[in-house]
Amino acid sequence: VFHVAWDLQAAEKGGYAHFMLKEIHEQPRALRDTLAGRLQDDGRVRLEGVNFTPEEAAALEKVAIIACGTAHYAGMVGKYLLEKLLRLPVEDDVASEFRYREPILNEHTLGLVISQSGETADTLASLREAKKAGAPVLAITNVVGSSVAREADHVIYTWAGPEIAVASTKAYLTQVASLYLLALHLGEKRSHAPWAQEIAGGLKDLPGQVEEVLKLEPRIKELAGRIAPHEHAFFIGRGLDYPVSLEGSLKLKEISYLHAEAYAAGELKHGTLALIEEGTPVIALATQAELLEKMLSNIKEVKARGAWVLALTQEGNTAVAEEADAVLYLPPVPSILAPAVTVVPLQLLAYYTAVARGCDVDKPRNLAKSVTVE
Amino acid sequence: VFHVAWDLQAAEKGGYAHFMLKEIHEQPRALRDTLAGRLQDDGRVRLEGVNFTPEEAAALEKVAIIACGTAHYAGMVGKYLLEKLLRLPVEDDVASEFRYREPILNEHTLGLVISQSGETADTLASLREAKKAGAPVLAITNVVGSSVAREADHVIYTWAGPEIAVASTKAYLTQVASLYLLALHLGEKRSHAPWAQEIAGGLKDLPGQVEEVLKLEPRIKELAGRIAPHEHAFFIGRGLDYPVSLEGSLKLKEISYLHAEAYAAGELKHGTLALIEEGTPVIALATQAELLEKMLSNIKEVKARGAWVLALTQEGNTAVAEEADAVLYLPPVPSILAPAVTVVPLQLLAYYTAVARGCDVDKPRNLAKSVTVE
Repeated sequence: VFHVAWDLQAAEKGGYAHFMLKEIHEQPRALRDTLAGRLQDDGRVRLEGVNFTPEEAAALEKVAIIACGTAHYAGMVGKYLLEKLLRLPVEDDVASEFRYREPILNEHTLGLVISQSGETADTLASLREAKKAGAPVLAITNVVGSSVAREADHVIYTWAGPEIAVASTKAYLTQVASLYLLALHLGEKRSHAPWAQEIAGGLKDLPGQVEEVLKLEPRIKELAGRIAPHEHAFFIGRGLDYPVSLEGSLKLKEISYLHAEAYAAGELKHGTLALIEEGTPVIALATQAELLEKMLSNIKEVKARGAWVLALTQEGNTAVAEEADAVLYLPPVPSILAPAVTVVPLQLLAYYTAVARGCDVDKPRNLAKSVTVE
Repeated sequence: VFHVAWDLQAAEKGGYAHFMLKEIHEQPRALRDTLAGRLQDDGRVRLEGVNFTPEEAAALEKVAIIACGTAHYAGMVGKYLLEKLLRLPVEDDVASEFRYREPILNEHTLGLVISQSGETADTLASLREAKKAGAPVLAITNVVGSSVAREADHVIYTWAGPEIAVASTKAYLTQVASLYLLALHLGEKRSHAPWAQEIAGGLKDLPGQVEEVLKLEPRIKELAGRIAPHEHAFFIGRGLDYPVSLEGSLKLKEISYLHAEAYAAGELKHGTLALIEEGTPVIALATQAELLEKMLSNIKEVKARGAWVLALTQEGNTAVAEEADAVLYLPPVPSILAPAVTVVPLQLLAYYTAVARGCDVDKPRNLAKSVTVE
């Protein structure tokens, strides 16, 4: 008889050094699962747990997106999307504020709550507030049968699979994918949606595009080495790049303990520019075609103060390379779908920065996976 | 004949070491001027440049607040206020984002722009966007005859007087005061406003209360010495304390180059808590009576991770002193009016931290007084 040393946890990591890295690499699969069976060949969307009649969909006058942390940044992507595509006013709130600010809601407001675990305490309490005010509630969650899923009127499940690392990656990405599906679904029910075909086609390309950006891993590891010695970093973006900047900076904070902060790029000069000094890393997101010129100005602005700029943009935007110190090129994803691709290199950047700083990636200090207390 | 050496600039500083300190001390006067002649003895408000008919006021369905930097944080105070008092949905945006996100506006949306100089490029462009969409626009500005004042349909002038220091203090405070006046005015025009008498009475007490908190100066100078050696600080607050936290952290950033960041207190545990270590300064605002218990939990949360907590609360809230390392007591200002008082100690804290760090207070690096470029 002989014994084999068996590290169950390592086995579950499937050869990856950390759960987070494994989960980052699972994203093409997670995206495929979340989209599968829902995006039909004719570009229409079937969402099993979502049951708006055309009348109910047409009666919506506002969407109130409510979530915490990473899920709230997914929600901010949703705000830009739903407003742009559906021309429906959207407000977004962090759940701990929403609960207490006597929000103005009624039966024409869709309460849209997002929670990976479906048990986030403030989010669940907000859902109940919204229902009490007569608002229909739709939940986006990863856990079947969770409290949020049970109490909402409509549910979209993200099929991310179990997420073990405290810092969310695949759950976030599938939340964003679900928001595109919701936009398509409400577009169909509410009105003529001339953009539907393009969005549906683009969604089908996403898993492959995420596979593409994962190939940037060696280069990102190298760039992380440039960021790791610093104690401050800034992320800037405009439009749909802004919530992705927030999510990128949160990842870096959570696992590398580097004080990263995100700004709407046009706001920097109203104060925070004072913090930029020689060598300060600035990560600039430049995936929004119609805002590219403005972003180039903002990149010049921080460069003039000595910042080291890493830019992310789609292949072909060569003007960016002329201004930034380093560029990560994304596949040619349309601006409106960019948030589902851009975030992936930012996750890898946070991961390799944390590893370079010797941090405990999967279990960052002070944090819990789901916040089930208030 | 003999010559007297005459330092014109020092004379204009009226004996203060910096314009910023002089302007902080001018705030009781600036507040009195902004309120004078507008708050009548019967609690009614007369605003010369604001001409809503009761029909126009009643037709408003939404307010869109648009501003940059410090003025945007004044606007966030306005969002909480106007929603709470008027039960009117309010959205707030930074002007550089508002312009490009195809906002949904019409003649029932009040565009509310705030700019000290009245020349802020993104704010002015947003004003034009709003007008083009048919929205009536109201401007809050400090400069008579500025572009924003000329192009808006309604104007409230802040009578702050010229502000020389780049970091705004008295202009911010009078913007906040103007928002209270606007709430009273719209309340009168739109409906029965049972809260009007209380707010009007409270506003009259504000200049005296600001005089009171200015007396905390020696103690604040001492506390700034505790913060100055650090490179990071966090500000936390809930409800109306949240925008004030943002403004307090911006002041510290702008003039002391310390990386300060503000959080809605309930959001900290969704990631940023990882950045709290032994001795990290956390400034906790606890002026909202109905949120006091929740804030005490948040203070305990950061204390458990080693933070050094400076709390601000009204006299009598002794429970705060049991949790925090230091407390600055404010006069007994009602929660709803607290933003007009709480910010003053935060301005002094930023000022003395910058002085302790040897920074050029009146002319911080990289920043201009008015941002008239995009």
